[in-house]
Amino acid sequence: MAQSRITIIGTGLIGTSVGLSLASRKDRTYEIIGIDRDRNFARTAKKMGAIDREVGSLEEGLMGAAIVFLTVPVMAARRLLQDMGPYLAEGAIVTDTCSTKSDLMRWAAEYLPEGVHFIGGHPMAGREKSGPSAARADLFQGATWAIAPSPRASEQSVQVVLGLVEAMGAIPFYIDGAEHDQWAAAVSHLPLLASVALFRMVRDSQGWEDAALIAGPGFKDMTRLASGDATMARDIMVTNRDAIVHWLGRFEAELDKIRTALDAGDDSMFDLFASTQLDRDVYITNPITRRKPTGPVAPSASDQMGQLLLGGKLHDKLKEMPDKMNGRTDDRDLRRKLGAGDDNGAR
Amino acid sequence: MAQSRITIIGTGLIGTSVGLSLASRKDRTYEIIGIDRDRNFARTAKKMGAIDREVGSLEEGLMGAAIVFLTVPVMAARRLLQDMGPYLAEGAIVTDTCSTKSDLMRWAAEYLPEGVHFIGGHPMAGREKSGPSAARADLFQGATWAIAPSPRASEQSVQVVLGLVEAMGAIPFYIDGAEHDQWAAAVSHLPLLASVALFRMVRDSQGWEDAALIAGPGFKDMTRLASGDATMARDIMVTNRDAIVHWLGRFEAELDKIRTALDAGDDSMFDLFASTQLDRDVYITNPITRRKPTGPVAPSASDQMGQLLLGGKLHDKLKEMPDKMNGRTDDRDLRRKLGAGDDNGAR
Repeated sequence: MAQSRITIIGTGLIGTSVGLSLASRKDRTYEIIGIDRDRNFARTAKKMGAIDREVGSLEEGLMGAAIVFLTVPVMAARRLLQDMGPYLAEGAIVTDTCSTKSDLMRWAAEYLPEGVHFIGGHPMAGREKSGPSAARADLFQGATWAIAPSPRASEQSVQVVLGLVEAMGAIPFYIDGAEHDQWAAAVSHLPLLASVALFRMVRDSQGWEDAALIAGPGFKDMTRLASGDATMARDIMVTNRDAIVHWLGRFEAELDKIRTALDAGDDSMFDLFASTQLDRDVYITNPITRRKPTGPVAPSASDQMGQLLLGGKLHDKLKEMPDKMNGRTDDRDLRRKLGAGDDNGAR
Repeated sequence: MAQSRITIIGTGLIGTSVGLSLASRKDRTYEIIGIDRDRNFARTAKKMGAIDREVGSLEEGLMGAAIVFLTVPVMAARRLLQDMGPYLAEGAIVTDTCSTKSDLMRWAAEYLPEGVHFIGGHPMAGREKSGPSAARADLFQGATWAIAPSPRASEQSVQVVLGLVEAMGAIPFYIDGAEHDQWAAAVSHLPLLASVALFRMVRDSQGWEDAALIAGPGFKDMTRLASGDATMARDIMVTNRDAIVHWLGRFEAELDKIRTALDAGDDSMFDLFASTQLDRDVYITNPITRRKPTGPVAPSASDQMGQLLLGGKLHDKLKEMPDKMNGRTDDRDLRRKLGAGDDNGAR
């Protein structure tokens, strides 16, 4: 039977969750390939049923891929974009789940061949734990999934990604890459830094053990982000530093206001808490409505999948590709291609 | 049948959860009385089965009470301590669940009659929502419950409170009131302020709606504490200001370090994230062992309950009390006694 192929590069928490979610569709006829510079990750993903096949080389992994997910930290994604071009079929779709978009969009435009469609993506989902064993098929259920198509991406390729995102239960919405990074700095990257600062503050104090004894769920929640992947965090800081420094200044200004209210005493402090409580309750109970994706009406997920994956159109197209991808590389070469040249081995 | 009586003053999230937890014990022969300045709260608690009886006056509520829980914000607890003395039986036990302990211990020593045993308490548990309808019988399951006995409290009275805390599934541990407040400032009160600052920073920015659209679970977690009860938050700041200002300074110093690492670039940032990730993972996977309560070996919860509540010893003692508590007060008087003189009506 004709099969289309989806390749997931990076089988950590996000990549394996993408795999689990897409693999669970009963009507699927696409094959899911997984690849990771840590082959144990990919093997775990395979055992979990997130991927159908684990491959040991970038060439093999990209051969015949209709859709490629880059589910790695953003600097690793850069290196992949540099390396993957020669192995991609004309018309292939490349998308990602990286935390920052601006630099990545630029690199995709620079490194990918013209006939390849790049559509930036970012699911607003995560867990405290990382690695494939923390993955869940429903990780993206109800989550916002930012979509930033490159100018060169065809409308049809955007619709394919929208369809996949919807198939995973997420709610896609369009956003410009630079705009994404500005707001992500406020709601995601600065909170990460605050979480790290809070944990370090207590952990490095002489009374750590006593403090830890009375730390409740509030402290755990407020420091959860500090348990996130260090490479991902570092890459975020490298690729979005200006916006993060801006919001760090604004955060410190808010803390100054609170200090002033503390000094002023009773009423201003109560007013601050009461208005914040009210505003946040409104935010939680009446979430701001998402903009519908603009542009042509998107076919439903099933139409999408049927049209482009189940129906095998892309497969037909891919069959026409030159069969130039028979080489295998050893693990060391794979590690280099997947960005392991970076000495910070932590995922 | 002879019944001992437990009175819960303040039937919000915590008080109603205490009631639900204690009411669910199958072998209990104690009666649970609930009282709240907002009688709708107490009526809701009654409907939920958290209390057996809702009463409309402080006198009536305290009549024959063997154990009194003050489950209100700390400044309201102060007013209750001022007012409740005349209605308490000799040998009665008063405990609380307030967020700060130092001032409260002082007020208890100042206002309560000599024959009353005060044992400060603080369960490290909470939820985003407040009010009785958010209460849960298992809210304290596995939670740390700080116990700060006053010097005047008898060993037996401390054992009763330990027994109740264990009966609710919590893990009691002794701590000095001042020490409690110092560490609570670090792991609970400063995080609350950081949460408020973070939410206000984004909420008050011009891009709030765009930012909210891409805000994920991280932002929700990091701002959860900002949805807490405003009166409770204000009371914490009033009664623990010095410690909080101290930790606010240390938090800002941590943020400065991060800013320096951001400026320095790649490696120092990665090291910071990696060491923090490691330290926090250790904290989560290998929690610091709690000190066992010192002093005489505590009887088990069932021994405790049997000895002092089910066995009716306290009831026998209470029967000897002068029956001076037949007066009822109207709601206005009740509201005054329960601290509603304070114009900040929010619970």
